[in-house]
Amino acid sequence: MSQASLQSFAELSRRWREEIDEALKLHTRFDQSCPDRLREAIRYSLLAPGKRLRPLLALMATEACGSDYRRGMPAACAVEMIHAYSLIHDDLPAMDDDDLRRGRPTCHRQFDEATAILAGDALLALSFEVLAKGFPKAEIVGRGVRELAYAAGPCQLVGGQADDLLHQHAAEGDVELLQAIHRRKTGAMITVSLRLGGIVAEADEETLQGLTTYGQCLGLAFQITDDLLDVQGDQQSMGKRVGKDQDRGKMTYPGLWGIEQSRQKAEQLVEEACEALSPIESRSTSLKSLARYVLERNH
Amino acid sequence: MSQASLQSFAELSRRWREEIDEALKLHTRFDQSCPDRLREAIRYSLLAPGKRLRPLLALMATEACGSDYRRGMPAACAVEMIHAYSLIHDDLPAMDDDDLRRGRPTCHRQFDEATAILAGDALLALSFEVLAKGFPKAEIVGRGVRELAYAAGPCQLVGGQADDLLHQHAAEGDVELLQAIHRRKTGAMITVSLRLGGIVAEADEETLQGLTTYGQCLGLAFQITDDLLDVQGDQQSMGKRVGKDQDRGKMTYPGLWGIEQSRQKAEQLVEEACEALSPIESRSTSLKSLARYVLERNH
Repeated sequence: MSQASLQSFAELSRRWREEIDEALKLHTRFDQSCPDRLREAIRYSLLAPGKRLRPLLALMATEACGSDYRRGMPAACAVEMIHAYSLIHDDLPAMDDDDLRRGRPTCHRQFDEATAILAGDALLALSFEVLAKGFPKAEIVGRGVRELAYAAGPCQLVGGQADDLLHQHAAEGDVELLQAIHRRKTGAMITVSLRLGGIVAEADEETLQGLTTYGQCLGLAFQITDDLLDVQGDQQSMGKRVGKDQDRGKMTYPGLWGIEQSRQKAEQLVEEACEALSPIESRSTSLKSLARYVLERNH
Repeated sequence: MSQASLQSFAELSRRWREEIDEALKLHTRFDQSCPDRLREAIRYSLLAPGKRLRPLLALMATEACGSDYRRGMPAACAVEMIHAYSLIHDDLPAMDDDDLRRGRPTCHRQFDEATAILAGDALLALSFEVLAKGFPKAEIVGRGVRELAYAAGPCQLVGGQADDLLHQHAAEGDVELLQAIHRRKTGAMITVSLRLGGIVAEADEETLQGLTTYGQCLGLAFQITDDLLDVQGDQQSMGKRVGKDQDRGKMTYPGLWGIEQSRQKAEQLVEEACEALSPIESRSTSLKSLARYVLERNH
């Protein structure tokens, strides 16, 4: 990625990230019916500094499909809420039992376990309210809600996490199982973020399929680079303990393929992701830059 | 309630309960992407014997507003899924820490804590998929999803549970706080069950308002009788330990008002509930019978 395009991508992402955070703040002000402690826990986790990968994908897909990116904002907020909820619940003592997330105490460490469970539940429900309120046309609300609910449900996000917990110490070498877990646990929400952006922009089926392929490749590339960073990254820039997957004997791509082959596979997937954008070739610069950025990130 | 009308109401409820259970079974078959253990936990909790109060309210409201009750089935399933999710999470060790529910081990006792958290999460997401798929007209899907998400969210269901945990040992006598908790924790989902039935049937605003008032009165009456049963019921017909609220020093209506005044208040609320049905007077027999049944139930 050239220095110039990297800079303009970084600038665009920074600006949009600010707008996303503003919108997330607005959606979590709540009236007095929401207990203060619950509101604080929701905002603590949702507004924590983060990459905002999924909402950026939603906005970029909206623009790539020919609409003003602002139309994609409700979808962007909805997917980030589901992402935040899934992190809160994944971190719980009964699940991954993590103390640190994005460089700060996890929600149940900062508040308490009951509040963390409820904050996650609240964010999941809220995401559908935000999506249903913000979608511009009645005809597409149903499709958006269906796709988001499926991606967040027992066959995708939740199912992936369940299998991840169950197979943490599965026999080394089962790359199909590892991919099936990531496809559901990470891939489905990345893909639906893009598709919701496309649906808001009323993209045709060919374009939605292109976004789906892009999302599937990107999701896997993202997971591989995540595993690579866990092996090689330094704790400070990651904001969480590194090497923890390996310590736990968890299956990872570098563990299965070695570091060099994992890196090559990630590069190849990013190429495939960019090729899949051919139906929206002329407006796909940001999405392509984002895919290449995933390879080069250090946190 | 006369013996004849009690019998015909009981017969109708039994028949509809069977249809509800069939529909719930169909919605939780899932394909292979859903891990077996997660599917089992979801079905264990969702299909456990229960009153099916919320789905019955949805179907009765649909019929009372002039539509075939079957049109209300997706809404009926959606509200029961949210009810089941909220019970699973409320029973968790970090929340109410209950071992017994509907006469059987709670989800986290039968499976494990992680599976119970995920089963609840899955049911919450699934409810929106079922609602968005099943609503007959695009124009009303958005409204249905918005209302359901609000009722299940941080200002209603989740907020009520958060305050309930926070104020379990609040000073005796604070009836406003107790009602504010129940309005959100129990009342909101009862009310939205009725409203979704009305929305599917394309009821006018006056009718929806009547259903809302009916739901608010019924919800409170239901909570009062629940508290009365906790004091007076026997363990076998309740399927859970009785007297547990009192043991925990939890605020209850009989604790605040005494048994006789609590019973009178419940009766008065049921009268008010039935009066609120005047916009749909001619088709409101089932809803009225249900309200009176709430007073007379023993579990």
